[in-house]
Amino acid sequence: MSDLRDEQWFTEVFDSHGSAFSLKVSEKLLDVQSPYQHLEVYATETYGNLMVLDGCVMLTDRDNFLYHEMIAHPALFTHQDPKRVVIIGGGDCGTLKEVLRHPDVEKVTQIDIDEEVTKAAERFFPELVEANGDPRAELLFADGVKWVDDAADESIDVLIIDSTDPVGPAEGLFKTDFLKRCHRILKSGGVMVQQSESPLYHSGSIIRELRNDMREAGFDSVATLPFPQPVYPSGWWSVTLAGKGTSVENFREEAAASHEMPLQYYTVDAHRGALALPPFMRKAFA
Amino acid sequence: MSDLRDEQWFTEVFDSHGSAFSLKVSEKLLDVQSPYQHLEVYATETYGNLMVLDGCVMLTDRDNFLYHEMIAHPALFTHQDPKRVVIIGGGDCGTLKEVLRHPDVEKVTQIDIDEEVTKAAERFFPELVEANGDPRAELLFADGVKWVDDAADESIDVLIIDSTDPVGPAEGLFKTDFLKRCHRILKSGGVMVQQSESPLYHSGSIIRELRNDMREAGFDSVATLPFPQPVYPSGWWSVTLAGKGTSVENFREEAAASHEMPLQYYTVDAHRGALALPPFMRKAFA
Repeated sequence: MSDLRDEQWFTEVFDSHGSAFSLKVSEKLLDVQSPYQHLEVYATETYGNLMVLDGCVMLTDRDNFLYHEMIAHPALFTHQDPKRVVIIGGGDCGTLKEVLRHPDVEKVTQIDIDEEVTKAAERFFPELVEANGDPRAELLFADGVKWVDDAADESIDVLIIDSTDPVGPAEGLFKTDFLKRCHRILKSGGVMVQQSESPLYHSGSIIRELRNDMREAGFDSVATLPFPQPVYPSGWWSVTLAGKGTSVENFREEAAASHEMPLQYYTVDAHRGALALPPFMRKAFA
Repeated sequence: MSDLRDEQWFTEVFDSHGSAFSLKVSEKLLDVQSPYQHLEVYATETYGNLMVLDGCVMLTDRDNFLYHEMIAHPALFTHQDPKRVVIIGGGDCGTLKEVLRHPDVEKVTQIDIDEEVTKAAERFFPELVEANGDPRAELLFADGVKWVDDAADESIDVLIIDSTDPVGPAEGLFKTDFLKRCHRILKSGGVMVQQSESPLYHSGSIIRELRNDMREAGFDSVATLPFPQPVYPSGWWSVTLAGKGTSVENFREEAAASHEMPLQYYTVDAHRGALALPPFMRKAFA
């Protein structure tokens, strides 16, 4: 057994799944207890900077492009004409940056409960916040559930739930009642997307339940898209899309193939490939 | 920092990439020093049995389907009419099992240098060896490089290099000279496939070099296919195909869509999606 106990390693143990992932760190850059969570930032040897919330890896410089591209672009290319976008959570601003790459988007509001996350991103992840000055961007630090409750009926095109895991501050974002409220504020043709954990660990539990809850909340179509994410449990992650009066099994393939955004992972083929679920996932959802 | 030092965890440290992956183990089932490598088998809490060679995770019950399906089926559906298949390495027999699912394959020879690996698979991974009694299967325990040297010119349809990492016993399998010998024994229209490490860690190094070496060895086309593999470094892995007088960018899509094999990951869409590389990989290969 190797010794990962010393100060050179940050380790996240996924007890319920009997696995652990570690990154070699050279320095702790930040350690803050916010009113909502424990926030740490480390410099790693090979993954750039690392952000940790309540002991869980949130992102690294090296591989956050996978998650941020896959939570933003499939939803935006699925909606027929996304102009008004809302992000619940997402305080690191990486999702916001991806959304703002779409020139036809007119306004994006990001509502994260914890301003410390955005402050940490500004200091230690400057690439993620580089679009924050875009006049279409609005950053609020408030309770996302309450913001959704206060929003007008049918006022939003794309709603992105860029939350932490379904424990702690994000717990309320994984409940049917919240999904119903999301459904209410989406216009007809609207698309919602939520990060939905590991295909290997959660296809028969969290993902399956989220899909059922989305249908129960009134959504007409649901699609789960898996993608690689090395620093998350099992190295494999997913987002789940839901459509209000629209199918999330189809997307604007021509636009997705012809855009000129400098992406690193998302392509029209990656989107198509992700929509065609592996048989073991299809079976778990049946 | 969590304590992974005790006997409850098996940890593989990827020093050159500053990361580590751990599985919680309940029992060590086997510990053998073969003439070639150190072989261990553990019972894990959540991944079934785990095989380790020279300290590196080889496979687990839970997720080996990803690797075995992706090293076998893309190559077999790329060849127009695969009848004669050879596997170098692959002593756990999981790849052999996938190849034998193809009814038109007439003969498969597996050449692994280390019989202890197959013995361990027979004892602790019974699902992987369940096709070994197929009359089309031939299992040899010998030096794969020498076997290739002794094989007749243009005698093989599909050649699968199912090796360990390019250090230790498999080092010779990652060299241009060996690739040239592989090219020699493939018939025209033949397809070779080799496991090619992590897209995140090795796109600009091992994978790029392997692709160049394959072209230098005389192959006319090359394609790298990424896929998730939770227990391997970065949780993301790849195979690289090379074609002799044939394009490995195309495959028998109709056959891949209509087969009746009980697969868990491979689909015609997964194959298409994998062929369309993420932009960051395309850039690394350019």
